[in-house]
Amino acid sequence: MPDSPLINRLVGALRCLPGVGPKSAQRMALHVLERDREGGRRLGETLVEAVQRIANCERCRDLSEHPLCSRCADRSRDPGQLCVVETPGDVLAIDRGAGYRGYFFVLLGRLSPLDGIGPEHLGLDTLEARLRENEVRELILATGSTVEGQATAHYIAEMAEELDVRVTRIAQGVPLGGELEFVDTPTLAHAFSGRRELG
Amino acid sequence: MPDSPLINRLVGALRCLPGVGPKSAQRMALHVLERDREGGRRLGETLVEAVQRIANCERCRDLSEHPLCSRCADRSRDPGQLCVVETPGDVLAIDRGAGYRGYFFVLLGRLSPLDGIGPEHLGLDTLEARLRENEVRELILATGSTVEGQATAHYIAEMAEELDVRVTRIAQGVPLGGELEFVDTPTLAHAFSGRRELG
Repeated sequence: MPDSPLINRLVGALRCLPGVGPKSAQRMALHVLERDREGGRRLGETLVEAVQRIANCERCRDLSEHPLCSRCADRSRDPGQLCVVETPGDVLAIDRGAGYRGYFFVLLGRLSPLDGIGPEHLGLDTLEARLRENEVRELILATGSTVEGQATAHYIAEMAEELDVRVTRIAQGVPLGGELEFVDTPTLAHAFSGRRELG
Repeated sequence: MPDSPLINRLVGALRCLPGVGPKSAQRMALHVLERDREGGRRLGETLVEAVQRIANCERCRDLSEHPLCSRCADRSRDPGQLCVVETPGDVLAIDRGAGYRGYFFVLLGRLSPLDGIGPEHLGLDTLEARLRENEVRELILATGSTVEGQATAHYIAEMAEELDVRVTRIAQGVPLGGELEFVDTPTLAHAFSGRRELG
C-alpha cells in the first residue's frame, strides 16, 4: 500500500468504478500520477460536473443534462411506438443496433419486491400518464429475460391492456450466430416452445 | 453512443485510465451516474486534488504529497542500503514482500536512447550526489529484466563503482512455484547459466 494518504485515498476512490479491484485501482492511480496528469485532471473535473449536472429526463427518465433528453426532443421519431427498457445502457444498445425509431421509457430498475422495489420506483405512474395521452399505438417491452424482468414486463402489459394499448415483447430465443451446444438450457427450452412456422 | 455531450465527455475522459476501452468506459460512466453518484463525486474531487498536490519526493523521486516522502522521512530505515527501482509501483512491490528496510531511489523510467531518455532524465545526478554523501554501503539495483532495465543497471553500476560503492543486482531466474515447462526460454537459459552450488 502506498505510504501517501492522498494516493491511498485515490486508490480507494477508484474502486467505486465497476470491475476495479484493489490491484487495478493502484495501477490506475499510479498511471495517472506518473504519466497522465492532464487526463486525470480532466477526468476529475468531468466527473464532478457530470454527477452535478446529469439528472433524468422528465419524459423518459433516461440520463440527461437537460430537462428533456435529446431523444425525447427529437420530433422525427415515431410517437406511435414506445419501448420500455430497464437501464440507460439498454437504450444505447437498442438505438445502436435495432433500427428502432420510436421513443423510449426507462424504468431505471425492475420490479423486485424482495428489495422493496415496487411500481412507484419505476415511474409507472408517469408511463401510465404517457399511455393515456393516446399517442402510443404499440408498447414494446424490452425488459431483461431475468425473472424480475419478466415479472416487470407482465405487470406493465396488464396496465397497458387495461388502457387498450397494443403490447409486444421482444423475441426471446437462441442468439444469432450462436452454436446450439453452448446455449444454456432454459434459453434452448424457451426457443423450442416458441418455435414458429417457416415461410 | 450516448446522446448527451456531457456523458460522452465523461466516457472519453475515463479512457485515460489504463486498460479501459470504449465499452468499459461507457459501463463505468453509466454505473456512476445510475448507482454511485456520491462515489463519483468523491473520485472526481480526489483526482483533482491528487494531480495538484502529489509531486515527487526531493530525495528519492517517489510520488509524494510532501517534499520528503514518508519512506525517506522514516529514520528507522537502514541508511547503508539504497535500492534503485524504475517506478513507484516497484517500491510498493518490494516494500510489500521483500523484507527490505533500507531506502529507495526511483528513476521514474529507464535509459532508452531511442526514446531520447538519457541519464539526466532519471535523476542520476541526484543519485550520484547521494552516493557521494558516503552513507550508502550497498546499492541494490532492482531495475527490470528488460534490455533497457539491464542497460540502466549496467550504467548505474559503473557510476557506483567509480565512487567505490558496493553494487548488487537482484537475482534473476525461474520464479518460485513456477512449473519449468511454462518458464520462457531466455529466463530458463539465464537461470541455468547462473546456477549455484547447493548447501
